[in-house]
Amino acid sequence: MCELLGMSANTPTDLCFSFTGLTQRGGNTGPHKDGWGVAFYEGKGVRLFLDPQPSVSSPVAELVQNYPIKSKTAICHIRQANVGDICLANTHPFVRELWGRNWVFAHNGQLPHFTRQPGPYEPVGDTDSETIFCDLMNRIHHVLPRDAMPHQLAATLAELAEEYAAQGVFNCLLSNGDWLFTYCSTKLASITRRAPFGAAQLKDADVTVDFSAVTTPNDVVSIIATEPLTTDEQWDIYQPGEWKLWSQGEVIAHGGDGSRA
Amino acid sequence: MCELLGMSANTPTDLCFSFTGLTQRGGNTGPHKDGWGVAFYEGKGVRLFLDPQPSVSSPVAELVQNYPIKSKTAICHIRQANVGDICLANTHPFVRELWGRNWVFAHNGQLPHFTRQPGPYEPVGDTDSETIFCDLMNRIHHVLPRDAMPHQLAATLAELAEEYAAQGVFNCLLSNGDWLFTYCSTKLASITRRAPFGAAQLKDADVTVDFSAVTTPNDVVSIIATEPLTTDEQWDIYQPGEWKLWSQGEVIAHGGDGSRA
Repeated sequence: MCELLGMSANTPTDLCFSFTGLTQRGGNTGPHKDGWGVAFYEGKGVRLFLDPQPSVSSPVAELVQNYPIKSKTAICHIRQANVGDICLANTHPFVRELWGRNWVFAHNGQLPHFTRQPGPYEPVGDTDSETIFCDLMNRIHHVLPRDAMPHQLAATLAELAEEYAAQGVFNCLLSNGDWLFTYCSTKLASITRRAPFGAAQLKDADVTVDFSAVTTPNDVVSIIATEPLTTDEQWDIYQPGEWKLWSQGEVIAHGGDGSRA
Repeated sequence: MCELLGMSANTPTDLCFSFTGLTQRGGNTGPHKDGWGVAFYEGKGVRLFLDPQPSVSSPVAELVQNYPIKSKTAICHIRQANVGDICLANTHPFVRELWGRNWVFAHNGQLPHFTRQPGPYEPVGDTDSETIFCDLMNRIHHVLPRDAMPHQLAATLAELAEEYAAQGVFNCLLSNGDWLFTYCSTKLASITRRAPFGAAQLKDADVTVDFSAVTTPNDVVSIIATEPLTTDEQWDIYQPGEWKLWSQGEVIAHGGDGSRA
């Protein structure tokens, strides 16, 4: 299995604190030593850092921990391989261009018998995760108009996610830079930080941050992760089947939690 | 204008020496301060580092200079913006997936009036370079079979490159990881290093390397760059219209130099 980390914020924000916590699980406090990756949107561009080395000892991860790359949307993944070798091509997140936007995807789970429908998007590596992503992109391209509004898109994404989750474990993060779609098949949690900001202590490293010192009163920053990353904050735990569409740090659509989408 | 740097080698080789020379031109010995990027193939995967900051002062460039990422094929670009803002989405190299491979492209030149033919690959940013790359990918996808051999591919690429070069300045590097296609519209040079290896001195920094200390006798490493990067080696200068297809450090097809392709 793997661990996911996503961020949605209304102002460019660095991910150093959360990333520091997550990367400890890549070979130190957790067994996810088979590579890691992170994608930061900057406008429509994406900075993608990938490394098949354990995040806890990767020089590139050290750079990302210490160099505050500011982004409104970011997706991060640390890997414990089950399907596919440990190599760069099998390292999440995966990126494809559609309608002139970079779409970024990371997956936690396993769909051992998944077969994708044919289409122009093809996997480069040999993970089930990238195969599902290509299937998703082919089907979005096929069924949605390029000017689909986020809510129409979310309804389609939720349907596809439910279909994938029926075939295995499918927790995912997906973004085109404007929004962040999150789906929980088994495990996902979120927290939204806004004024008045307090302090927080990482669960996986002896690191504390005082958010009030690094934010302005209007900032809204949400973190979505496989498991809560801090010990002294109240995280919301997703229900199995629940999805949320985030934008600018806020939930703009949600469903699968018993309420109507 | 911009500067290009490519590498083709028969064994995974780091680009630190050449990259150190090139990045000096990104704000120090040269005016190419509007961002830089480099793509390293590792198997079918690609490590892509992009930064809209000047390479001479970029923390990510410092990492790439000092962390020996070993690759058989790499493409690097430093930018002096003419078309398009200075932003991440406009930073070369550009990547698209086709037939389950990552295709990487960087361009030096300008095609101010270029219009692409419609097709599924679309630019994310607003440079002429990325627009041409998308046109190229759409047309390759349309006219070539997915199992096209490198020579058939090279003939098509050379035809397309000639067509682009007729509309402006078009020096380019393109790879799918197996081969490196290089086209010279105005300026490109190459050097192939093989046993017996000697020493070399960078033109742009006070750095010397003794290649014999870092190679084995079977290594073949070719560097392709806008201008020679060293002062004490004999570089081959491309003729306008000349193209070379490199693989494993060797030229496997060439044309446009007066000989038959």
